[in-house]
Amino acid sequence: MPRPPLPPAPTIRPAARLSAALLSTALLLSGAAAAEAPARGPTVSEVIAAAAPGDWRGIDPESTLVMELASGPVILELAPALAPLHGANIRALVREGYFDGLTVVRVQDNYVAQWGDPEEEDGRGSRPIRTAKAALPPEFVVRDGTALPFDAIPGPDAYAPETGFVGGFPAARNPKTGEVWGAHCYGTVGVSRGDPDSGSGAGLYAVIGHAPRHLDRNITVVGRVLEGIERLSSLPRGTGPLGFYETAAERAPILRVRLVADMPAAERPALQVLKTGTPTWDAYVDARRNRRDPWFVEPAGAADVCNTLPPVRRAP
Amino acid sequence: MPRPPLPPAPTIRPAARLSAALLSTALLLSGAAAAEAPARGPTVSEVIAAAAPGDWRGIDPESTLVMELASGPVILELAPALAPLHGANIRALVREGYFDGLTVVRVQDNYVAQWGDPEEEDGRGSRPIRTAKAALPPEFVVRDGTALPFDAIPGPDAYAPETGFVGGFPAARNPKTGEVWGAHCYGTVGVSRGDPDSGSGAGLYAVIGHAPRHLDRNITVVGRVLEGIERLSSLPRGTGPLGFYETAAERAPILRVRLVADMPAAERPALQVLKTGTPTWDAYVDARRNRRDPWFVEPAGAADVCNTLPPVRRAP
Repeated sequence: MPRPPLPPAPTIRPAARLSAALLSTALLLSGAAAAEAPARGPTVSEVIAAAAPGDWRGIDPESTLVMELASGPVILELAPALAPLHGANIRALVREGYFDGLTVVRVQDNYVAQWGDPEEEDGRGSRPIRTAKAALPPEFVVRDGTALPFDAIPGPDAYAPETGFVGGFPAARNPKTGEVWGAHCYGTVGVSRGDPDSGSGAGLYAVIGHAPRHLDRNITVVGRVLEGIERLSSLPRGTGPLGFYETAAERAPILRVRLVADMPAAERPALQVLKTGTPTWDAYVDARRNRRDPWFVEPAGAADVCNTLPPVRRAP
Repeated sequence: MPRPPLPPAPTIRPAARLSAALLSTALLLSGAAAAEAPARGPTVSEVIAAAAPGDWRGIDPESTLVMELASGPVILELAPALAPLHGANIRALVREGYFDGLTVVRVQDNYVAQWGDPEEEDGRGSRPIRTAKAALPPEFVVRDGTALPFDAIPGPDAYAPETGFVGGFPAARNPKTGEVWGAHCYGTVGVSRGDPDSGSGAGLYAVIGHAPRHLDRNITVVGRVLEGIERLSSLPRGTGPLGFYETAAERAPILRVRLVADMPAAERPALQVLKTGTPTWDAYVDARRNRRDPWFVEPAGAADVCNTLPPVRRAP
């Protein structure tokens, strides 16, 4: 895989490693200083540090939602290429204020946090949907995905012939059928449903555990949490069946949800996502597959799609 | 794969599905009743329900630890076959009371919760180790694992030539070299280290996110959380580098840790783990790979090792 012209990897000091908190996720320091060893190529944090401004993209204000919990914002980006109808409907739901004052209804350990109308009983819920649609056809799979730009990563994958990214969202592809679908990784956001065509976006969930890839192609994937997933993943687990909360007092309120496009300029989160399909991206994938921090003694030489998610940062 | 003589799968009613909370992890009900459809074979919960008493094994009292947090117990089982030296040392640490009064020191989202001595600065810590060893040689890999019973699951796997279970613990194997090693899945417990030979078991971590399989073969895997992982995974994330807590007040105290063998009989947790390598196990793996609950429209036909962990129950 081609690598961008990065500076030679410095010998990494523990202090420098600690400062790269977001991406040096491999460190499990017990306090001792790691042995210094010559690195054979850039580490993940070195690739990120060396990325040029043009290696990053901004977020789409019309496709990015800010959900405010008491603990702070959860920011998620919709993937219109994977689910255009659901994306548009979620936009309409947000703009009619549908989510404001609703709650997180379910947190199931190693699985999902789900939010929406806690009073929902019959698929439409006690809160009326005014301008948006109450049900949509499934968008579990893009049947003809051959036109979608797909940045594949090296395989194999347990679940799909090919995995990679569509617009920065984890996805899978079947080259024989041309089908493309969103992949359930940590932070993936999908649309709750009963029957296959009962989803509208009024109920949503985010993955907070090991990738439940068996959900792929069975439910509509609409996007990905870019920031604040820990505000969902650290919530108390529901004690009812499937992790549903049993009492109103347990449910974390959703103060409001806004599209970034509808926020005052000063309040908009200045997030950037590393672009896929660039030489820097290739170096990032390679560094995720072959960890070169001196802590590692045996680089895996592999990384699954959910361990290769595009980094997100606040614009410098 | 052979299947045990299970009763024909009933048509599954939503109520029945809800009652199987632990294992019907695929349901994302938005409130509507799912369409009833004839099932083609047993579902995961049907396999579990039909398992005979002999399909379950008890836990080894000498290898199972109960770590008491303020929120309740976290119960973890050691895997002596994968890390005998570290298992024995952790037993000694527990028996000398090493962990009692220490804390969770780090919770990094989508990665690990780590516990031990919060004052540790130099690899040995401010709390003296009295009877146990302060450092051990690495047990990252069982170099000659050919004698270990290994129950393989169907591949492919992104990280290893072969995956499966050793004594019920997720593991991987390289048939060419005979090496076997513990796999980092949700709930896997490992030994914190700086240098490769600096681990002792005085600092431990549990995985609370998407399987960080790149840690495999780089750190000593000692076991698996059987019950109570949510007491770690729902803790507030640390705000320091790598998710370390920055103040003493943030750290969840460890009230005490005991081996089950040292607990009064009436207090011992009566946990059972589904045995691997039986016809019921094969049916379980098959049902995990091919979800037959009527909610599913497109069974994956696959499941990675971390989505195939042996179920745990309280003895009936």
